[in-house]
Amino acid sequence: MTLPRVLVIGTGLIGTSVALALRERGGEVWLSDQDRATAQLAADMGAGAVVPDLRDAKGIADAAVLAMPPAFVAAGLAHAQECAVASVYTDVASVKSLPVRQAREAGCDLETFVPGHPLAGREKHGPAAARADLFLGRTWALCPLPENAPSAVDAVTRLVLACGADLVRVDPVTHDRWVALVSHAPHLVSVAMAARLAEQSAPAEALRLAGQGLRDVTRIAAGDPELWTQILTANAAPVAEILQAVAADLTVAAQALAGGAGEDTVTGLLDRGRAGVARIPGKHGGKLPELTVVQVVIADKPGELARLFNAAGEAGVNIEDIRIEHSPGLPVGVAELSVRPAAAVRLLDAMDAGGWPARR
Amino acid sequence: MTLPRVLVIGTGLIGTSVALALRERGGEVWLSDQDRATAQLAADMGAGAVVPDLRDAKGIADAAVLAMPPAFVAAGLAHAQECAVASVYTDVASVKSLPVRQAREAGCDLETFVPGHPLAGREKHGPAAARADLFLGRTWALCPLPENAPSAVDAVTRLVLACGADLVRVDPVTHDRWVALVSHAPHLVSVAMAARLAEQSAPAEALRLAGQGLRDVTRIAAGDPELWTQILTANAAPVAEILQAVAADLTVAAQALAGGAGEDTVTGLLDRGRAGVARIPGKHGGKLPELTVVQVVIADKPGELARLFNAAGEAGVNIEDIRIEHSPGLPVGVAELSVRPAAAVRLLDAMDAGGWPARR
Repeated sequence: MTLPRVLVIGTGLIGTSVALALRERGGEVWLSDQDRATAQLAADMGAGAVVPDLRDAKGIADAAVLAMPPAFVAAGLAHAQECAVASVYTDVASVKSLPVRQAREAGCDLETFVPGHPLAGREKHGPAAARADLFLGRTWALCPLPENAPSAVDAVTRLVLACGADLVRVDPVTHDRWVALVSHAPHLVSVAMAARLAEQSAPAEALRLAGQGLRDVTRIAAGDPELWTQILTANAAPVAEILQAVAADLTVAAQALAGGAGEDTVTGLLDRGRAGVARIPGKHGGKLPELTVVQVVIADKPGELARLFNAAGEAGVNIEDIRIEHSPGLPVGVAELSVRPAAAVRLLDAMDAGGWPARR
Repeated sequence: MTLPRVLVIGTGLIGTSVALALRERGGEVWLSDQDRATAQLAADMGAGAVVPDLRDAKGIADAAVLAMPPAFVAAGLAHAQECAVASVYTDVASVKSLPVRQAREAGCDLETFVPGHPLAGREKHGPAAARADLFLGRTWALCPLPENAPSAVDAVTRLVLACGADLVRVDPVTHDRWVALVSHAPHLVSVAMAARLAEQSAPAEALRLAGQGLRDVTRIAAGDPELWTQILTANAAPVAEILQAVAADLTVAAQALAGGAGEDTVTGLLDRGRAGVARIPGKHGGKLPELTVVQVVIADKPGELARLFNAAGEAGVNIEDIRIEHSPGLPVGVAELSVRPAAAVRLLDAMDAGGWPARR
């Protein structure tokens, strides 16, 4: 499969990840961002070469990827088409009806614009968080329009597949109902729970009792309010419908509990919840090599990590990832080092020789 | 600190982890479980020696830990006190008012019973999942009763500290309000969202669009409905109050969105949610000063991190934390180095001198 030459407009997390995925396969990638430093960081990561000004980039690419929030897609598309930077265009915005309507209103050429939405994200933003494998085995919704030229759909399809994603074709309206269910409503539900933690009835000491469950439920509530306001208002009706249903279930459960006879009602809701979560497909992307985690107890003092990395490096062990768990108030922490399975024993030996308690 | 001799009654995940933590420090530990094989597995793991029958175990321990679900604590305490197996008693149940009330009703000796609740858990159950380090740096709530003898509180305090936990003292009623907020209500909120996925309006194709956000929000909804019905009804009033507030926020947001003018309402809720999630203590327990993150592009090869740490060390910069963002297959990754704000410029200079692309 010949890779299209691609121009990524907007080198945030998604745009830079698209670029990295294509570069990994040897593709030719150009980068553009209204923040020049952001584009340069993506370029430093090997994501491609920076295009300083789209007005000087006529015909630079076969396909252009508009990687920007929903409300900016139509304007971005209009500008890119005006500059004729590519033959076909796609976007990655998380709602589809709004940008399509705005692009139509703006008089964009819809023959060459095939809207898309990769279902991949992280809680982090910006090019530094980008990964070439972000889309591996993930779903990428493509929403061809009646106006689309078949060749444009083919070209964008090839781009999606080159990123390693699984393609789902769906019309924009149905797409928006689906993402309301699996993404937008869950976001506000997470937020509504997290908002309870901001109340005066939640003293700091209470939050010391927080465990992994609360952290998981509320993790996405840390997302950018401005971005999410845009997303949610751009998909308002489908989101509102689901939130009403969730609120109704919670109200019934609360009343049953408060009334002192909530057992059956609560069990019924718990059963439905368990049935629902069981329907979520398992994690894809099992294509990466499994890494082995080695836990090393380290003193919490300057230079300790450097000594540890020196020891690992001298043993010829490449550390693929690291997480540090500090125990507040304790003089030690635990470093979780991820390494290829074949290197685990060597790492354990090196840690042992260096006097660090370590275990797999 | 002399370790108390401890009898663990109930060798599941928590009980066995307590035993392992104490054994690791050289403590003398006895094990009991109504399922003899479960107790034997814990013993095989080095958690202690099995006591076949509590009726033959008079005075065997200084402290006994009742590690069983909330509804069984009072009966377990009554039996253990009847057998006089220890001088002081504690439990690990996740609600406190209910077992205390039941123990009082059962005529237990409350002078020697100091209720507790370690905030540590895993998704796995049973002794095999136990870890000596389960409580390291984790919060352990202790809920002394008015009836408690000071010496009993001291003994249980020593036991908690010997497990490596951070102690929080709180009365049972306040404890239950806190866990309603950080654990029980979040569970039902997760469940209510997950229940939407069980509806006919959720086709299997829609669920293919599910990302990590939905998985995180709904993960705990997979928990055992029977166990959770017990927990939630045992803490009904505080849970109901929080669920009502969450439902009210969701209803208001839904109405605002459906009315087409939801922007301010939604942003307000998103802001509150973000403020709430920010209050959850991080792995540092919020005790560290604000850190500045410097992103450095590094080659993915052995020794690279060691060189980087050496360069930072030579510049006199102490790296407080590190995360590595690594795209498998790419020759580079991004190291996010957290340093004191005052050290950021020195670190950037050092990285620059060493040839690493870096930015704040």
